[in-house]
Amino acid sequence: MRTQYFTATSLDGFIATEDDSLDWLFPLGDVEATSYPEFITHVGALAMGSSTYRWMLDNADKVAASVGSPWPYSQPTWVFSSQQLPPIAGADLRFVRGDVRPVHAAMRQAAADRNIWIVGGGDLAGQFYDAGLLDQMIVQVGSVTLGRGKPLFPRRVTKPFKLTSVRQVGSGFVELYYDISPQE
Amino acid sequence: MRTQYFTATSLDGFIATEDDSLDWLFPLGDVEATSYPEFITHVGALAMGSSTYRWMLDNADKVAASVGSPWPYSQPTWVFSSQQLPPIAGADLRFVRGDVRPVHAAMRQAAADRNIWIVGGGDLAGQFYDAGLLDQMIVQVGSVTLGRGKPLFPRRVTKPFKLTSVRQVGSGFVELYYDISPQE
Repeated sequence: MRTQYFTATSLDGFIATEDDSLDWLFPLGDVEATSYPEFITHVGALAMGSSTYRWMLDNADKVAASVGSPWPYSQPTWVFSSQQLPPIAGADLRFVRGDVRPVHAAMRQAAADRNIWIVGGGDLAGQFYDAGLLDQMIVQVGSVTLGRGKPLFPRRVTKPFKLTSVRQVGSGFVELYYDISPQE
Repeated sequence: MRTQYFTATSLDGFIATEDDSLDWLFPLGDVEATSYPEFITHVGALAMGSSTYRWMLDNADKVAASVGSPWPYSQPTWVFSSQQLPPIAGADLRFVRGDVRPVHAAMRQAAADRNIWIVGGGDLAGQFYDAGLLDQMIVQVGSVTLGRGKPLFPRRVTKPFKLTSVRQVGSGFVELYYDISPQE
């Protein structure tokens, strides 16, 4: 069981524009050609921040048109938010705030032998990292630059991650796999 | 003959810290294992911004200890700067400012059939891109994050670059090659 931050990013390290648009992302390639379909089968629990959840809320029609349901995940999902947010039909949600450690413990129990996916944003992934709970980053680097936007991982980590594999997906993406060693 | 932006970057898109340190970069791997030694043999002219040149000035001792001379390039080098900067012994330098287009024309003549290397920073590479003069980006993505610093490429380019190849260099780097198509 691993805790994984799987995300797409621009080449210059932004996971969304400053107004949380992902419109730049979808033309870059077919998600079915990436490692996502295999990845998601091993996920037992999800965590996301409020911006990521709001994107799901705001794009429920688009998601439904694409996958047949406004919420694409069958797994239990923890949403970190300090505000009250409306539910999405069909989603198995727990709204939480604060320290990631007790939440991780609950997710671990729910996920059993499957993985925990930190969907985003970058700071939430950083909080799991800070707590020593992040095992792996899988980054789909899109062949675009955004110049500004929401950061991939707003942390300074100069003790290197371990790049374990790279996989080109057409001309629009490369997938980078990093193991994250325990912090000293 | 191609105009190439070849640079190292952190995974989150910074080519240097906010105070222009590259100390995070050198432990990531041996430059001799990367594509740099082959790349530089095909370069006929260099362009760099004032921060990049200042790094060379400030680290002349380090450079000399590593390559035997305070200036590692035999090729003519154009330095874009609005300030007066001291020369470095052994360097074939032209100090310039302003529009990159006439400078590119002069570099092209000097480089003949060899390539033009935009060493950095990101905004200088962006200026060559803006003028339609950048043909290729070669990015060595290091397995670290900086959180903040000098941006890889401060431009929004959502018409995708074309990822042509990827090459893993140990666990510390992946090299990404992008062709840049002419702008419409």
